[in-house]
Amino acid sequence: MEISAKDNHLIKLYRELRSSRRSRGEQGLFAAEGENLCFEAVKNGVGIFTLFATENYIRKHGEAYEFISQRAEKSCIITEKLSEYISDTKTPQGVFAICRKPERITDIGGFIPKGKLVLLENLQDPGNMGTIIRTADAFGIDALIISSNCVDIFSPKVLRATTGSVFRQQIFISENLPETVRALEESGVTCRCAVVDRDAQKVGSFAFGESCAVAIGNEGAGLTEEIKSAASGKITIKMNGQTESLNAGVAASVIMWEMSK
Amino acid sequence: MEISAKDNHLIKLYRELRSSRRSRGEQGLFAAEGENLCFEAVKNGVGIFTLFATENYIRKHGEAYEFISQRAEKSCIITEKLSEYISDTKTPQGVFAICRKPERITDIGGFIPKGKLVLLENLQDPGNMGTIIRTADAFGIDALIISSNCVDIFSPKVLRATTGSVFRQQIFISENLPETVRALEESGVTCRCAVVDRDAQKVGSFAFGESCAVAIGNEGAGLTEEIKSAASGKITIKMNGQTESLNAGVAASVIMWEMSK
Repeated sequence: MEISAKDNHLIKLYRELRSSRRSRGEQGLFAAEGENLCFEAVKNGVGIFTLFATENYIRKHGEAYEFISQRAEKSCIITEKLSEYISDTKTPQGVFAICRKPERITDIGGFIPKGKLVLLENLQDPGNMGTIIRTADAFGIDALIISSNCVDIFSPKVLRATTGSVFRQQIFISENLPETVRALEESGVTCRCAVVDRDAQKVGSFAFGESCAVAIGNEGAGLTEEIKSAASGKITIKMNGQTESLNAGVAASVIMWEMSK
Repeated sequence: MEISAKDNHLIKLYRELRSSRRSRGEQGLFAAEGENLCFEAVKNGVGIFTLFATENYIRKHGEAYEFISQRAEKSCIITEKLSEYISDTKTPQGVFAICRKPERITDIGGFIPKGKLVLLENLQDPGNMGTIIRTADAFGIDALIISSNCVDIFSPKVLRATTGSVFRQQIFISENLPETVRALEESGVTCRCAVVDRDAQKVGSFAFGESCAVAIGNEGAGLTEEIKSAASGKITIKMNGQTESLNAGVAASVIMWEMSK
């Protein structure tokens, strides 16, 4: 099937999924751009509802296209103009997919995951969120638990920054993160809050152990008091320099690095 | 002085400095947006050639405005429309400065800095570059040495991601990074290349010592062979997870964290 019209319903759907969190939620679909994301989606069993590719992309990347398109429920050829129209980048590769949200990413409910856990509260920067998912995947964090007021992990900027780790990393959503923290503590998992506080326990000065959880808060405001009082510990990253501030993605990454040791 | 016209020469200069690396280089000036950057510039002795602020900003942030404007060579009131016109963000704060490039940031030439050094080769992502400068400042890295083919540290996106650390952190530019590596090695400083290679020395398994240098390469291509053969060591970040890839800013941050221990 070839598409050249902007008002084609699939093109409209792709653009809607790209920009609207609500639409992604209602339809259970999301938009993925670029070979890396489409490839990783297929490789990790994410359903491809519709694949779009330009002739130019197919000519240049035949092998990758074949791999992705064989697993797509529907494949469409689009014009270069449409590729530019639906792309989120300046120089589109010419391959896009409408994907089905993985069922693996669900509400945590009362479930208690095992191992090394990282909890994120109200993170808003898509780059930070994507980086944290990618780093968690690299350092073998067993599960991420994300409060439902965080930036949507299926937004285009988050997806791009994960470079596909979002399709591998175990992720839970929590509608009530303080409740999740209390449930973890009750089941014997020590939850530590990452804070900027010289009196907190210094990351690197203790062992996290096989079963542990760390909570990381919003870029500007940090963790809420509710989380801090639900968790049993506070940790901090010692800084020797002239500033006492780290990017939230970097702070989370340093903590995950220490958790992985 | 009040400005309301788009074709005012100072407004044109600001926009030119915002978008053109060449113009920043030729004029020795750069554009800084937002209270945090303007404040940090003044606090760290960076010259303010021209300050722009909206009346709304001045009314709401009188104290900060007074602090910044007292040190500005020239202050201009601009309209809300002009603030939107020159802003790089969706919701501008309404304060902008044309700053003089700090003389502190110079070509390294044959100089050998002391202490813990981080060398960056051909880094292209402004977010990564800004994050690395911010983290280096937080972890007390003594100097960053940046190859001249990296993204410009005075570009708006880099400046924003540094949150002002660029005005504190010691930074040198190297026109010939392999030459700089050789000079460091000859003066007894061990240079280690950050690579993705399981046989390399594992970060965390050795002490960096008081005098050390680590080189970090381009996001996609890594370090060039020339740097690798000039340096005496190779180091890698052990990953236990499902991916063997970290964001360059995260990789650099984990290494700087270990250097700071």
